[in-house]
Amino acid sequence: MSENRHGPVVDTSASRHARLRPVAPQDVRVTDDFWAPRLRRNRDVTIPAQHAQCETTGALRNFARAAGSVGGDFSGRYYSDSDVYKWIEAASWSLATDPSAELGDRLDAVIKLVAGAQDTDGYLNTYFSVDREGERWTDLVVRHEMYCIGHLVAAAVAHVRATGETALLDVALRACTHIAERFAPGEVPGTCGHPGLEMALVELYRTTGDERWLTLATWQLDSRGAGVLDGSEYLIDHEPVRNQSRVTGHAVRALYLYAGMADVVLETGDAELRAALERLWADLSGGKTAVTGGVGARWDGEAFGDAYELPDRAYNETCAAIAHIFLAWRLLLLTGEPQYRDVVETALHNGVLPGLSQSGTEFFYQNPLADAGRHRREPWFSCACCPPNIARLLASLPGYLYTTSDEGLWVQLYIGNQADLRLADGTTVRVELTTGLPWRGAVGLTVSPAAPTEFTLFLPVPGWAGDDVTVTVNGSAVPVTAGSRQVALRRTWSAGDTVELTFGTEVRALVAHPRVAATHHRVALARGPLVYCVEQADHDAPVAAIRLRGTEEWAAEHQPDLLGGVTTLTTAGTAVAVDDGPLYRPYSAVADEAQVSVTAVPYYAWANREPGEMRVFIPLASR
Amino acid sequence: MSENRHGPVVDTSASRHARLRPVAPQDVRVTDDFWAPRLRRNRDVTIPAQHAQCETTGALRNFARAAGSVGGDFSGRYYSDSDVYKWIEAASWSLATDPSAELGDRLDAVIKLVAGAQDTDGYLNTYFSVDREGERWTDLVVRHEMYCIGHLVAAAVAHVRATGETALLDVALRACTHIAERFAPGEVPGTCGHPGLEMALVELYRTTGDERWLTLATWQLDSRGAGVLDGSEYLIDHEPVRNQSRVTGHAVRALYLYAGMADVVLETGDAELRAALERLWADLSGGKTAVTGGVGARWDGEAFGDAYELPDRAYNETCAAIAHIFLAWRLLLLTGEPQYRDVVETALHNGVLPGLSQSGTEFFYQNPLADAGRHRREPWFSCACCPPNIARLLASLPGYLYTTSDEGLWVQLYIGNQADLRLADGTTVRVELTTGLPWRGAVGLTVSPAAPTEFTLFLPVPGWAGDDVTVTVNGSAVPVTAGSRQVALRRTWSAGDTVELTFGTEVRALVAHPRVAATHHRVALARGPLVYCVEQADHDAPVAAIRLRGTEEWAAEHQPDLLGGVTTLTTAGTAVAVDDGPLYRPYSAVADEAQVSVTAVPYYAWANREPGEMRVFIPLASR
Repeated sequence: MSENRHGPVVDTSASRHARLRPVAPQDVRVTDDFWAPRLRRNRDVTIPAQHAQCETTGALRNFARAAGSVGGDFSGRYYSDSDVYKWIEAASWSLATDPSAELGDRLDAVIKLVAGAQDTDGYLNTYFSVDREGERWTDLVVRHEMYCIGHLVAAAVAHVRATGETALLDVALRACTHIAERFAPGEVPGTCGHPGLEMALVELYRTTGDERWLTLATWQLDSRGAGVLDGSEYLIDHEPVRNQSRVTGHAVRALYLYAGMADVVLETGDAELRAALERLWADLSGGKTAVTGGVGARWDGEAFGDAYELPDRAYNETCAAIAHIFLAWRLLLLTGEPQYRDVVETALHNGVLPGLSQSGTEFFYQNPLADAGRHRREPWFSCACCPPNIARLLASLPGYLYTTSDEGLWVQLYIGNQADLRLADGTTVRVELTTGLPWRGAVGLTVSPAAPTEFTLFLPVPGWAGDDVTVTVNGSAVPVTAGSRQVALRRTWSAGDTVELTFGTEVRALVAHPRVAATHHRVALARGPLVYCVEQADHDAPVAAIRLRGTEEWAAEHQPDLLGGVTTLTTAGTAVAVDDGPLYRPYSAVADEAQVSVTAVPYYAWANREPGEMRVFIPLASR
Repeated sequence: MSENRHGPVVDTSASRHARLRPVAPQDVRVTDDFWAPRLRRNRDVTIPAQHAQCETTGALRNFARAAGSVGGDFSGRYYSDSDVYKWIEAASWSLATDPSAELGDRLDAVIKLVAGAQDTDGYLNTYFSVDREGERWTDLVVRHEMYCIGHLVAAAVAHVRATGETALLDVALRACTHIAERFAPGEVPGTCGHPGLEMALVELYRTTGDERWLTLATWQLDSRGAGVLDGSEYLIDHEPVRNQSRVTGHAVRALYLYAGMADVVLETGDAELRAALERLWADLSGGKTAVTGGVGARWDGEAFGDAYELPDRAYNETCAAIAHIFLAWRLLLLTGEPQYRDVVETALHNGVLPGLSQSGTEFFYQNPLADAGRHRREPWFSCACCPPNIARLLASLPGYLYTTSDEGLWVQLYIGNQADLRLADGTTVRVELTTGLPWRGAVGLTVSPAAPTEFTLFLPVPGWAGDDVTVTVNGSAVPVTAGSRQVALRRTWSAGDTVELTFGTEVRALVAHPRVAATHHRVALARGPLVYCVEQADHDAPVAAIRLRGTEEWAAEHQPDLLGGVTTLTTAGTAVAVDDGPLYRPYSAVADEAQVSVTAVPYYAWANREPGEMRVFIPLASR
């Protein structure tokens, strides 16, 4: 499998139904002022800190205990193994782009620990080792055994693609063989209360070429709705996935499941699954996505709400935003439609990034759109799914910047980088992309094929730019069709050819669909790919008192010393009197309003200063 | 204890710090067109149906099992006993006002069953009988043992006050003696994860005169904040109750606890506890009460939200509205301040009544202020706290209509009735109160003391009437001070004296405090004591599309055949286009609006027709 030593995150390079093919993270070096420091901090601070957490919490020790090399009790929850697997995945992708002997040694040690914990029959879950062996596979609803193996497989695939080493892949193959025998396709229905294994199995198929993993993934999808999981809507078992039209239940579980469906469709073209995905995506994007790309409105059940149920106090789990990216990325690979890259971009900047502190060591589990000042990031959680999920996504981010197709090269995310890419016909192209994003809407590309080559360079026009876009090639303007979400530049490219793009970064005051009551007559501010919020730290008047007109002009100013360097937005607004009067009063009694300066900061940066009120959707004045 | 054979619900007749004294339910016969049929249905339909549920679920059988007369497993949850106790309380109050040999026999049988389950040491909880005896008192945080005994005591007190019989009181006394020995005041801290026993113990003190129950109640209050309950904020154990200022945690638990604090203050005048109650009430009423009187905004944890966190999808558990009434009623007895009777009235009509179906056999657990059409009442719940809580409150409702004091007689709720009351000086007074409420703001009283007597008749001016009030005595107008919330008529009353009151019932379009973002630029409609809502059944346009101006005139029309007879409100509003456009769009893009007729029905009556959207807070047009 030497061809896989250099693999992408989602490898559709041989997927028959994929419109797009990915590139490998190791071929892309992120260089810009916004993302490069974040990826460096992920490597230098976050990944080591998370390894320490896996030691502190006993998640690593559980593997030694399962191997019999230490005694004592199991630590953590029945899915604690997945913390370690996600750390392996993060460390692997980090090594792919930034080799490090120290991290490599640490990773090898962890993998050795994992391998040692595997039972001779391939079974692997340290919760069930030693004293709970009889409970294996007795509770698919709750116990997350397949979910954990899903993360093992994802880690193993990342490890082999990053390093070419197969030690962990061998462990994963034995574990999946065990599952395939225990829940044999066509014979024994089997699927997990927490999805995740499905997409991992398809990736295992892509890595090994062994069709049994694709068959097993499909079998797991189709085992849903057959009662294995009690028909629970929370577990997305209320009807066969092929029949579903409404995203419901636990948000992370649902989106991991749908991402697995998309992976199967990429391989098989299954028309029923594809139609279900289209219905589900319409439901998700049409009424169940926060303006930040966060999803899963309800704290109870970490679940999707009803359509248009999009409150301030949204749950918006960090993992759900990551799952949203996983699904959107696969649908992008399937279709090439720019709407999906817009979701990846929005959710990355505004759904995932807020989950991480400026220090790189504290995390949000929930990402509400307003807060009274009590919601703060924490170093870890008893259910620690989110922190290593952020780490593995950031470590693999270079793999999300480009795709290719038979026609040529597609830029997907405007993140500054230098890349060495290979087109479908084998042509190698060096690309340099510079940008001031997310602050300034300027992008420059230098495209240098090894030899002059005709191909199309696909450049997305992000939804946030509207029609405010200009494109030049080697200094000559290229017309852009109004409303177009993509510019396709087909020509014979030669070394040093340049493309310049500008995108409008006017501040946008956004309102939600008229069915959304919770944010009625309120606006969310956005500029470029970023959603903004107002924080108490920038205001004397209570944040809750601030009112806008919705049509005001905003002054954007870059402040390099604030919150790690952010562009703030400032305008003249008003503040209503927040009196001690009754909680409910006649409509006619409108409070007096005072002029105040209103400052908004990027939502991703909130809660990095002293605690205080925060609000994304700001009320418009009633008068 | 013969003086208690005829007792009120909360007996402050000998409470040294009470401003007001209550009257007994059996002295008041509810006669009006609104409440009399509801109390009749409670007696004839709801209470029998709930007995049947206690049989079906095994809650009754658990007592036989504990007595050793049947085998098998325990049924339900560790607090299932409380379902039975609440049923006993409901049945007892029902018998107090409406004697029934059939219900009396059934009640006696249930009490016999309960008595038979008590252990020789006084312990009583059928969950821990037979096979869990070793687990008694091992988990105060979760297991609700004291909570269940609280309901036993409340049932026993109701039973003795309604019937004069002491069989259940003896059981309760033995159970409380067991607790007082196990968690001896001053020696062994003890308090329950779910409060409720505190107020019951004070009532037991009032019934028996034995101070040890008051001491035990105070000890249980002061055991909080000492770590017995792990310092949990959810369990209101995060600080001593005397220090608390912020209502937080599980709403029912918190309000039961505070009601117990109020009971202790009524007896002891404890200044620290009283000051804490004042702070907590200010927090509750100032920013954590729904317009319906419902409380506890969060579905996660059935908990209070932050201040001003008052979303459409509020949890507003029916039991929490009842607990709100319990607390407000005690603070009314303590202070005589009309604000508390307003809360009792609002929560009764709009927080509790929605919990009951028109049929009397189905119940809401949660009472959100908007719904997409999926929230429906159910006949029972695996956690069945709410249904019998409604039944016991309605059965005891006649006891909430009046209070007395040294100065005279206080009307508290304008519910039509005939009553035979005894003033402080022993004078007996027959009162007849007729009213068209909640539909028409007319109230007539005939006051007939046994002999001409000077006393004050206190008549509240409900907050909803504002200054739109007239009062006549024997046909002569009495001036009413603007802003006054009470009219005090002191004179020598003679048999047949009449008082006529009128209260304005203009439709009120209410907005929430400017800090409340969730209902910004939306109005809730209210008329008289009732909050209204719009339901899909009355509209062609989606409820979500309806917009108002906030200043429109409403036509009120009584419709005797609709929803059991309701006054509907109708006006000309608009409906915005609910397009298929993007979920988020620029503020400037306002959808077209069409003229539509808008009809509102009382919130208590919602979800009694075909499922569909419902909304209490209706958006105002943005333009």
